[in-house]
Amino acid sequence: MMAAPVTLLGRSLVTSRLCACVIVSKRLYCSSGKRIRVHDALTSLEAGSAIRIQGWVRSVRSQKHNLFLHVSDGSSLQPLQVVASSDLNTRDITFGCAVDITGSLEKSPSKKQSVELQASRIEVVGECNPVDFPFKIKGHHSLEYIRQFPHLRCRTNAFSSLLRIRSQATAAIDSYFRDNNFVQIHTPVITSNDCEGAGELFQVEPAGKEGNEWNSDKENPHFFSVPAYLTVSGQLHLEVMAGAFPAVYTFGPTFRAENSQTRRHLAEFYMVEAEIAFTESLKDLMKVMEGLFKTTTEKLLSHCAEDVELFHKYVSPGYMEQVDLMMKRKFNVISYTEAIDILNCSSEQFTFKPEWGWDLQTEHEKYIVQHCGNVPVFVTDYPYELKPFYARDNQDQPRHTAAAVDLLVPGVGELCGGSLREERLELLKTRLAKAGLDDAYAWYLQLREFGSVPHGGFGMGFERYLQCVLGIDNIKDTIPFARFSHSCVL
Amino acid sequence: MMAAPVTLLGRSLVTSRLCACVIVSKRLYCSSGKRIRVHDALTSLEAGSAIRIQGWVRSVRSQKHNLFLHVSDGSSLQPLQVVASSDLNTRDITFGCAVDITGSLEKSPSKKQSVELQASRIEVVGECNPVDFPFKIKGHHSLEYIRQFPHLRCRTNAFSSLLRIRSQATAAIDSYFRDNNFVQIHTPVITSNDCEGAGELFQVEPAGKEGNEWNSDKENPHFFSVPAYLTVSGQLHLEVMAGAFPAVYTFGPTFRAENSQTRRHLAEFYMVEAEIAFTESLKDLMKVMEGLFKTTTEKLLSHCAEDVELFHKYVSPGYMEQVDLMMKRKFNVISYTEAIDILNCSSEQFTFKPEWGWDLQTEHEKYIVQHCGNVPVFVTDYPYELKPFYARDNQDQPRHTAAAVDLLVPGVGELCGGSLREERLELLKTRLAKAGLDDAYAWYLQLREFGSVPHGGFGMGFERYLQCVLGIDNIKDTIPFARFSHSCVL
Repeated sequence: MMAAPVTLLGRSLVTSRLCACVIVSKRLYCSSGKRIRVHDALTSLEAGSAIRIQGWVRSVRSQKHNLFLHVSDGSSLQPLQVVASSDLNTRDITFGCAVDITGSLEKSPSKKQSVELQASRIEVVGECNPVDFPFKIKGHHSLEYIRQFPHLRCRTNAFSSLLRIRSQATAAIDSYFRDNNFVQIHTPVITSNDCEGAGELFQVEPAGKEGNEWNSDKENPHFFSVPAYLTVSGQLHLEVMAGAFPAVYTFGPTFRAENSQTRRHLAEFYMVEAEIAFTESLKDLMKVMEGLFKTTTEKLLSHCAEDVELFHKYVSPGYMEQVDLMMKRKFNVISYTEAIDILNCSSEQFTFKPEWGWDLQTEHEKYIVQHCGNVPVFVTDYPYELKPFYARDNQDQPRHTAAAVDLLVPGVGELCGGSLREERLELLKTRLAKAGLDDAYAWYLQLREFGSVPHGGFGMGFERYLQCVLGIDNIKDTIPFARFSHSCVL
Repeated sequence: MMAAPVTLLGRSLVTSRLCACVIVSKRLYCSSGKRIRVHDALTSLEAGSAIRIQGWVRSVRSQKHNLFLHVSDGSSLQPLQVVASSDLNTRDITFGCAVDITGSLEKSPSKKQSVELQASRIEVVGECNPVDFPFKIKGHHSLEYIRQFPHLRCRTNAFSSLLRIRSQATAAIDSYFRDNNFVQIHTPVITSNDCEGAGELFQVEPAGKEGNEWNSDKENPHFFSVPAYLTVSGQLHLEVMAGAFPAVYTFGPTFRAENSQTRRHLAEFYMVEAEIAFTESLKDLMKVMEGLFKTTTEKLLSHCAEDVELFHKYVSPGYMEQVDLMMKRKFNVISYTEAIDILNCSSEQFTFKPEWGWDLQTEHEKYIVQHCGNVPVFVTDYPYELKPFYARDNQDQPRHTAAAVDLLVPGVGELCGGSLREERLELLKTRLAKAGLDDAYAWYLQLREFGSVPHGGFGMGFERYLQCVLGIDNIKDTIPFARFSHSCVL
């Protein structure tokens, strides 16, 4: 079938609101027309072109002579308005059904959209029973409500926006590192390190052949011959690479077997981690962290404006100002010791009394961010004893600190954590020996034995980043499939 | 300290081979000079500029008056030649040590390199005892030898090339999908699906508090309340997304608890998986697979020419011709039935007799690729009974097939596997019920109940791709940290 002379028909169609055109065009070009995405149709300037779109119906309005649909295919938040003669209306055109539509893309007479599709053919590809479908045509479903349907929630506006943002943020983070000549390393998920002795590890063994019981062969109980865990951080593996590359990064899943169901924790979450060789100052690390945050956010604000706006309008109203503030201002830098002073000078009643030598609690972190005008704050030089073995000794007195830094941000608290790493063989050896870890980390000591260099790095929680930029309260709403204690759906 | 008028000194330095310059420049610009990467120094056109480089010594040649070093920082395979007066030579300048060098970048009188660094200062940042260091200054270490040192092998030429290639290939794959409007989805690592009932699953539970024993609380034996596994494929999760987006992809680790130590298997490996909505033909999928392969390879050949050449010259001599062939020719397409005919007509003695209805063995796959002129071959329409429940029924007779496709490539065999997915609710319901899986996959059936669309997808093994393009025999040499049965080092 040939394409109709749509440009000629175009004008009269708009004025007559389609009544006649459908019949004409039905005859003329049925399922012909260039197949394009809704996003491309919306930004197309070629009024009068014959197109074909495929997507899902987001709204249905039936008038005496005309049928109005909104059709979305996930390529943009804004749907395409489809106008058809009511002759084309059938029972199975319902909210949620999948459709394949051909017609002519025309300038819309309405101010709500610049173009609309004047349909000559509507085919329902997949029906959707509106009674059973958990989302309703005019329902305003909360993030909490849609979270109950992990296999269907991507079909809502809010979650499809979240997924487009997440994909763009991933691309922006990769670009930032690649533009700055970092080599991407796939650090392993399964590891025999119980890094930092952090506890809360998941252990891995093959599922038993029968009834999913563990292999109980006592001669060789472990698949890998040693106990193996899911990684809690790729840092040590990145440090291996910092012995051969100027800068490396990893971006992948990490795990904590934490028995908590708060709005801040997931059992499986994504971390961006970077390690930089020949770095002798926390300033270098802070520059990368601030650059990563701002460059990524800038890209999101420009490439996903519409999707980000949905969150700043409906999910966290007024949050755009907070984001503007973070983007405009230089991030603050204070030392841990200054942070403790600030806390001690405040009139706030804290549940935990702030004291030098103790970890900052979430309530402390929040206060410090507020105190700094709701602009992100780097807190540097933590007490030596609080930090893991790899943190570089500042060798100061009487308050002994390590060259570590956390980035605290509004709403979330700790977003990044990093440090210079102890590159001096003797100091590291002594510290590992004291902890009884020198055998387990003999390989790590060898990194310092052969061409050791000063280096440092940091990690950023990706879901927390999304919470911080979008104003999302519950971390479960930032990830496609949330895993936490007592929940692993699909 | 101010920068020296190096351009003026430049000429005479080259002729006098440095003897005087070092003393001059030592006084003049010690540790000043712009810090740049070796890669940028090598491609710099500003002869005479004062620079500072930091890296590792790859070779040392000491003459009466001069010291020649090759220094690499991982930014390129080619090292930078450093020339210094022998006055700057010290005992600790050895193969493998880390150095920080300032000097003047000059045109090299030798044909082997276009520039060299005439050093005014050499500082050994980290020593390297050449006796203990497992790699030797003029040693030609095999991939097998260096594999024994997973924490150090990135310091060899071959493995640092591999890691740069891997990073570039990752970037190229991401670009391919993003340029084609795919949304990237982080499919979960931990899942309660035992997808395809494939067996060989890893199971996950928290490490016990004491002695790494499993939690034996009989009331609630599972952290997630249900048995949880490491993913073997993100396909089903991508299918969720194909109900809301035109095209999605995932690129991440997948797992098999296979008790084998062959050169073809890893317990943890990377998969690229894509899923496309509104696709009704295997042709659409094959177009994406071939596009992905060729676009990615083209980028590698242009962006990593030097690193790829190392493999084509030293690891798999002559392999470049094989790669050229794959790039130039259109991939072949034959049906499974044709493949069986080809095998049956051959005079080859196979260990397994080829027969319609049975899986192709590796020996069969290799023969077919050879038969097709060592150009990749798509094999389509496999016997229905061989394929998992989600493969789309071709409803043909008497030889009942499903719309599935594998891509076979030289050296490796199966590189990709894909299919159209059964989008018809009733057919899928019947098949799942027969397999007793309709309860477990009730959520999957719901995807077909609400706005189902024809769709399909495929997966590509990333390490096998690297083997195929670089001519690497053992898959363990394509991944930063290899995991396989009885081995999980670091």
